[in-house]
Amino acid sequence: MATIKDVAKLAGVSPSTASRAMHDSSLISEETKSKVRHAMQELDYSPNFAAQNLANQSSNTIGVILPAREEAVGENPFFIQIIQGLASICNAHDYLVAVASGQTDEELIKNLETMIKRGNITRFVFVYSQVNDPVLEFIKQQKQTQYVVIGSPESDRDQTCYVDNDNHLAGYDATRYLLEKGFETVIYAYTNLDEGVQNARYLGYQQALNEFKLPKFPLELSNRVADEAKNAQALRELLKKVSGRIAVLACDDILALDIQYLWDLCEVDPSKIAMMGFNNSGLAKIARPTLTSVEIFPRFLGTEAAALVINKDKDTFKLDLNRVIVPHKIIERDSTRF
Amino acid sequence: MATIKDVAKLAGVSPSTASRAMHDSSLISEETKSKVRHAMQELDYSPNFAAQNLANQSSNTIGVILPAREEAVGENPFFIQIIQGLASICNAHDYLVAVASGQTDEELIKNLETMIKRGNITRFVFVYSQVNDPVLEFIKQQKQTQYVVIGSPESDRDQTCYVDNDNHLAGYDATRYLLEKGFETVIYAYTNLDEGVQNARYLGYQQALNEFKLPKFPLELSNRVADEAKNAQALRELLKKVSGRIAVLACDDILALDIQYLWDLCEVDPSKIAMMGFNNSGLAKIARPTLTSVEIFPRFLGTEAAALVINKDKDTFKLDLNRVIVPHKIIERDSTRF
Repeated sequence: MATIKDVAKLAGVSPSTASRAMHDSSLISEETKSKVRHAMQELDYSPNFAAQNLANQSSNTIGVILPAREEAVGENPFFIQIIQGLASICNAHDYLVAVASGQTDEELIKNLETMIKRGNITRFVFVYSQVNDPVLEFIKQQKQTQYVVIGSPESDRDQTCYVDNDNHLAGYDATRYLLEKGFETVIYAYTNLDEGVQNARYLGYQQALNEFKLPKFPLELSNRVADEAKNAQALRELLKKVSGRIAVLACDDILALDIQYLWDLCEVDPSKIAMMGFNNSGLAKIARPTLTSVEIFPRFLGTEAAALVINKDKDTFKLDLNRVIVPHKIIERDSTRF
Repeated sequence: MATIKDVAKLAGVSPSTASRAMHDSSLISEETKSKVRHAMQELDYSPNFAAQNLANQSSNTIGVILPAREEAVGENPFFIQIIQGLASICNAHDYLVAVASGQTDEELIKNLETMIKRGNITRFVFVYSQVNDPVLEFIKQQKQTQYVVIGSPESDRDQTCYVDNDNHLAGYDATRYLLEKGFETVIYAYTNLDEGVQNARYLGYQQALNEFKLPKFPLELSNRVADEAKNAQALRELLKKVSGRIAVLACDDILALDIQYLWDLCEVDPSKIAMMGFNNSGLAKIARPTLTSVEIFPRFLGTEAAALVINKDKDTFKLDLNRVIVPHKIIERDSTRF
């Protein structure tokens, strides 16, 4: 492999001049820079990450933080697409993407400590957002460390740089789509309104119904299999109160599928009730009828986070640029084709 | 942050002596080593990755290669668990895990080139295995590069270091489980026997049926929604030929769910036919009835690959150690409780 000395020799300059030329120093003439560039090309020289990292005292590596709890990963089928998007952009800009993981928060923090201290890594992307996260607190306390959150920050939203979908608007758009298809009753099914995404989608649902001057029908269901009979009972009770053409908007595709399984227990003809979910996960294509859902483009959450974290510079950090919203799109399938 | 010079000063030795002491050189007395170790502790000094990487000319970083095709990722819900397992072990051993990704094979290879040339990364883990993979060919051609494949290598199996489940045994165990539960007809449903995993599971199914001297009923289905009527027809035809208590063993959970949706079209009472899948994915818990499936422990595929790649040393590389098999386990649920 060619070294900077080889480049300097071929260009007929000293190694320090070659280094300055590579860094586009104003002390070096254009003529010399051109000679050095040609020598670099001829020798297929690329500066070494390790040497650069030593020189910069900060590394060309972006740390990507996965949640410690294994269940949290299972719940989100999009992590891998997010990471693909992140790595694709970072790699193209000559950044490494280093994954931080651990079985517990303590283990994860210990691993991050090593990455920061020994790897000089100062830029991180959280691929999740969680209330009272000790890992986020740890990163916040580090000097010179910058981070981007994927998802909506649970605190300090104005001071945090993040990439997310507009879940409020997604809930609004989904509800309007159903209303405009002529459904007179739209039920919003959820499992936990304390959860930010479910709540934001619910608020959008509310707004659309208010605009149409139609009543809201929120329905809380349990996501435990053991509570199936209770869920069926709740659904049956609600269906007694409503009339006209009915649609159920579930807070995500998994809950939509759970509800499709409830129809039998409810003695309801499922072909009469429309169903819609969010996330456009693999489930939506597998379900019968295939499920109309809102695509949220997880890969773009990753590419946008990469662009933010690569360009992030503490000195020029502007608050009006601290939020990137990835658009969503309704994918119509058989479950709403009436 | 403390430097090696600070450590040397506090220990009262020269920086080069401090460095030798840290690397446990035989030229340095135990007394001096002890002084240096105390100084390191006092100053909370940890050697810098970048400095070490420069010194070693090979880095403390493991490259993890994701498949370029986005669809390939969607097909495998386990990548993220594999990566979690990998990162957890590598982080604990002070290795960074750098993700390589790209939208096309060419882009991925270009990114790997940069990682090798500029990052001095020499150890890689492929989290997938694919026939005629140009990315694998590229890595093979690199000097001093070592790699571990997760999944069974599609070629050069004897010369390749890999971590996998024993899919043949998993197919055998699943079939025996069904036979021992008293099912007289076991159908094996698949989409493509050219695909290594589906084929290995099929061979295990065959072996178990041969041992029980029972006939085989392989059933090829299409995984396209558009072919649903054709699939239902194939299933109906097969069901006419068999008798007794029937079980369907699907090559994975997704196909098992697809088949559950076919019963209506087949005018078959699903409560009379047992169903079983592989992978124990989230689907198995969501399906109704909940689906008996074979757990394959993807996290352990990652931790075992990490252990192999960290300990891999070309000089001591032994062929009898080039394969690690992660066990599987049958998770019984309602779909086979008759």
